[in-house]
Formats: sequence, C-alpha cells, structure tokens
Amino acid sequence: MRALYFDGARSRVVDRPEPAADADTALVRVHLAGVCNTDLEIARGYMGFRGILGHEFAGVVEQGPDDWRGARVVGEINFACGECPSCERGLGRHCPTRRVMGIVDADGAFAERVAVPVANLHRVPDAVADDAAVFVEPLAAAFEILEQVPVEAGTRCIVLGDGKLGLLVAQVLAGAGARVLAVGRHADKLAILGRRDIETALVDDGPGALESADLVVEATGSVEGFRRAVELTRPRGTLVLKSTVAEMPQVDLAPIVIHEIQVVGSRCGPFPPALDALERGDVDVLSLICDRVPLAQAERGLERAAARGAKKILIECGAG
Amino acid sequence: MRALYFDGARSRVVDRPEPAADADTALVRVHLAGVCNTDLEIARGYMGFRGILGHEFAGVVEQGPDDWRGARVVGEINFACGECPSCERGLGRHCPTRRVMGIVDADGAFAERVAVPVANLHRVPDAVADDAAVFVEPLAAAFEILEQVPVEAGTRCIVLGDGKLGLLVAQVLAGAGARVLAVGRHADKLAILGRRDIETALVDDGPGALESADLVVEATGSVEGFRRAVELTRPRGTLVLKSTVAEMPQVDLAPIVIHEIQVVGSRCGPFPPALDALERGDVDVLSLICDRVPLAQAERGLERAAARGAKKILIECGAG
Repeated sequence: MRALYFDGARSRVVDRPEPAADADTALVRVHLAGVCNTDLEIARGYMGFRGILGHEFAGVVEQGPDDWRGARVVGEINFACGECPSCERGLGRHCPTRRVMGIVDADGAFAERVAVPVANLHRVPDAVADDAAVFVEPLAAAFEILEQVPVEAGTRCIVLGDGKLGLLVAQVLAGAGARVLAVGRHADKLAILGRRDIETALVDDGPGALESADLVVEATGSVEGFRRAVELTRPRGTLVLKSTVAEMPQVDLAPIVIHEIQVVGSRCGPFPPALDALERGDVDVLSLICDRVPLAQAERGLERAAARGAKKILIECGAG
Repeated sequence: MRALYFDGARSRVVDRPEPAADADTALVRVHLAGVCNTDLEIARGYMGFRGILGHEFAGVVEQGPDDWRGARVVGEINFACGECPSCERGLGRHCPTRRVMGIVDADGAFAERVAVPVANLHRVPDAVADDAAVFVEPLAAAFEILEQVPVEAGTRCIVLGDGKLGLLVAQVLAGAGARVLAVGRHADKLAILGRRDIETALVDDGPGALESADLVVEATGSVEGFRRAVELTRPRGTLVLKSTVAEMPQVDLAPIVIHEIQVVGSRCGPFPPALDALERGDVDVLSLICDRVPLAQAERGLERAAARGAKKILIECGAG
C-alpha cells in the first residue's frame, strides 16, 4: 500500500507492506488524515521515530471483530499494554510501554490502511462527517484540560496561541462556560472564534496590559509564550501547558512559587466528549481546514502545514 | 532599640527607632527569632529590601488591643490590605499591595520589638515553648502543601532536600498519612526523620534509581534538585516547588507535558494547623535547633546559618 514513510532523514510516499489484523487489532481503511504540528516535528527527527507518519484520522474498519467490521471510526493513538499499574489505574495514555501511532514504535495513518487496537476504536456518529471526525484526536486533547482542571461558569481564561490546538481549546473552554480571551497573531484565525462570540486580541495589541486570569493555556509552543503565560496567571491560578516547547527556556521559577501558580502539563485526551461536541455542533472545526491533498502528494501536505499561518491540512487517503 | 538592619549593602546590629502601635497594629516584644534561608538571600540584596531583617519569631504583645496585651504570640508575615479582590477571596497572602515582614517594606523581627497587624497575630498555647513557637512560620509553610494538594493515607511522597524546610515538610506529610521518603545530603539531619520512622536516603545512594512518586516536594532550592524532582514525579503526579531556585534553570518542559505533571508553587501557609501540631507534639522542631546567639551577635547568627549543613539558628532578642 502507499504511505508517507519517514526513514529518519526524510519523509516520502512509498510502498509499504499492508499492516496485519489480529484478534485485538483492527485494520482501518483510512479516509482522511490530518497533519498535526507533532508530525512536522517528528519529520525533523523528534522522538527518533521511523515509520509511517500521522495520528489524526477517520476511516472504516475493514478487518477486525464482527461487530466492528464496516464501522466508521476514529482511534485513540496511545496503544497501552492494558496490564501494568498505570493501565490498571485507568491511565493507559501514560502506560510506560505504550506505542503511539505515528509517534512511538507504531505505524501511523498517512497510509491507505492503519492497524489500530480494537480497544482504541470509537464509532463516529452519522451526523459527524469525515471532515469533522478527523479533528477528534486534537479536540480530545483540548477536552483533556477539563479532566485536569476545574473550569466553571465565569472562570476567566486566556488562551495564548491561535494555532489549530489553541482554536480548539478556546472553543472547548467557552463551551464549558468559561469567559475566554484568545490571544494570537492572525486576525483570520481569531475571526473563527469571534464568530462564536469568543473574545479575541492580537498579540500586537499589547497583551502585557491584559488582566491576569484564573486559567491560562499556553498553546504557542514558544519560550516567549511560556514566559507571558506565567505573567498572565493570577496568584493561585493555573497555567496549562498544551504544547511542548522545542527549546529549553531559561525559566524563572520564583514567580511560580511566590504566586503559588499551578503549572499543569496536558497532552492527549478523552475521545467521547470530543465526539459528542462534534455531534452537537458545539465546536467549529470545519473552518480550521485550509487545504487538502491526496495521499500521493502527502509530502507537499506537510510542507503546506509548515507554512506560517497555515491551518489544518487534510490528506485524502482513500475513498470517503 | 537594637535591631539587625540591612542597609542594602550589609546587615549590622544598630539602634533603630521603636516601632509604633495603633488601633490595628500591635507592638510585640520579641523573645526569640529564627534565621531562614530567605533572610540570607535578602541580606545579599534579593527583593531589594532595606530594613530590619527577620520574619520567624515568638514574643509577647506589649502594646495593642486590651484582649491581646500580655498574650504570647506568633505572627503571620504577609500584611494584607484587607480590601482588594484577593483579600476578599481569602487570599490575603497574595494581596498585591501586601507588605511582608522583613522581606517587603515592613521591618522584621531581629529586633527588640516588632510591629504586627493585630489581624496577623496568633496566640501560642501554653504547652508550646518559645523554642518551638519560633518554628510556626516555616511549619505553616510546610502545612501549605496540604492546602494545595490532596495528600492521603498511602500517597507516595519524595521530599528532596534535608534543609530546615525539607525536614518540616517530610514530617507534615508523614503526619497526614503519606508514605514519605526524604532524600538529603546530611546523615545527621536525616536521622531526625529516622527517629520518627520516616524513610530516608542519602543522595549519594543514587536517587536516580528511586521509584517515581505521586508527590515530589523540591526543597533543595537547586537547579539540579528541580531536574531530579521532574524525573521522580510519576505521570499525572504532582511536583511541589517549596523553595525558589536562585538561578534560572534551563528547563525542559516536554516531560511535564508528556507525563502531564502538575507543578505547584507553594509559599507561606496557615498558622493554626502548625500551632496545633506543635501542641500535640506531632512534629519534632527542637532537634532542628543547632545554635542560638544574642541579638547583639545577630550578624554572627546569619553567618552561622549560611554555613554548609547548618540547621536552625535562633536569635535571642529579649527575656524569654
């Protein structure tokens, strides 16, 4: 089958062996896949991954247990052992021996087919088209914040960064009743939030003068974003780190202690609330799509995704 | 009166004007005061403070409201405005215009007398001698962790650092039912915990091989301690920063995100549980005293406190 394969030096669409299904593993024919910034980092050598890239997808089960065959699905990306203390505590996403689709030791979804543990599959409701379903994985990552931090009606939130994840996070927090201010660099992206009555501000408007918030979400992935996030978190407030910062920032830890700030790392999240939100139409994901390419041109898709100001690039892997 | 005054360059015992009492402010005759590492940092210019040093004390109210006069007291060090949004939410310790005894814009307790807002005073039970009462402020800082983080019977805790604060934190966590491992560099200090059946390990025994814990308290104040604390916190676990790190460490934020660690800054704490614990004899503070000097020799007291391996130095400010 055709797949976008990263060999450690570059990523190319090549022929790869078909993945195999077994009693616990389904074979999913991929309809659509989404390019995430993590894919771009991995394609630069991050995590030392070799294999087929991609972890955001929607497709149909081609081989697997009877009750799953033919089902339109999305899949959680952490393949847990199911037996270790972490898994027994329900923390399979932190299983120390987990494989992660397209990231750690497991082939990804920029391919005609992908193998996914049956335990990781979720059915997609009829009301959610593939174009939206392909956002379930990053949207679940946004919902993860609600699992970790109390967000109530009126909680004052600032989301720093108007990238794909920032736009999803802002909508999820607003949906939970929070008073959200999204701060970014792109008027066109912030307008997506503005249409949903979420307050926005351009960085250039001088966020240094912003009032501090109960909850600040750092979704820029930049050193400067982290520093600003610390400044903007009120005493005893919470700062959620929603993206890894590639550089190692020099961090002044003193304000975190003096203001008793809680810094919460946040990664993958639960699929069910993300699917529910898409079914109800609570989150606008379609406006985040900026381009789509066929699998044969996946390399170009990655290039497009790396361009400044790009939104979500979709890769059409098969018949939709 | 005599007082240890820091003029921005050095600290010296000099004559200073008597502080004044008013309707809201009591005048406390200081019996005993304790030297904290923060005093040493301030005496090196940290915080830009000028004034009388010292914020850990026990004494007797000499002037003030009738019902306080003659009471043996300790005092909270954050002098809040009482009227701002922070104060109204019960977060006076985070009042943005607060003065802080011996730290920010308020004279401290290395003196014959100190002025303390009546709202900040706490009576010392008869069963608690001055030698123990002088530890209430740092002990309250240890209890602050229990205000911020759920600690249950069996919570696996690692306390990094066997300084004064680390020794108090380990005892408070053990008292809350946690399974505590205290890691330090000084066998004599760790022995204080060993006598209370708290497990200890010397850093040289190789804490790299330690199992990760639910809760790690960083109380070394060192860059290396912070890095180790991140390593030792289990996925979804909590890292409490109990001391400011003087240097700006280069921090790799990725493990905090990947393991969804919660980093909680923790500073001053509540006095009542600290007083209760001392009254019940739940915490051994007397073993932490390593020397005492009269106020006239307070400068030497600070030097002693700065010596490697020093425990608590007390300054005898008046008749006990």
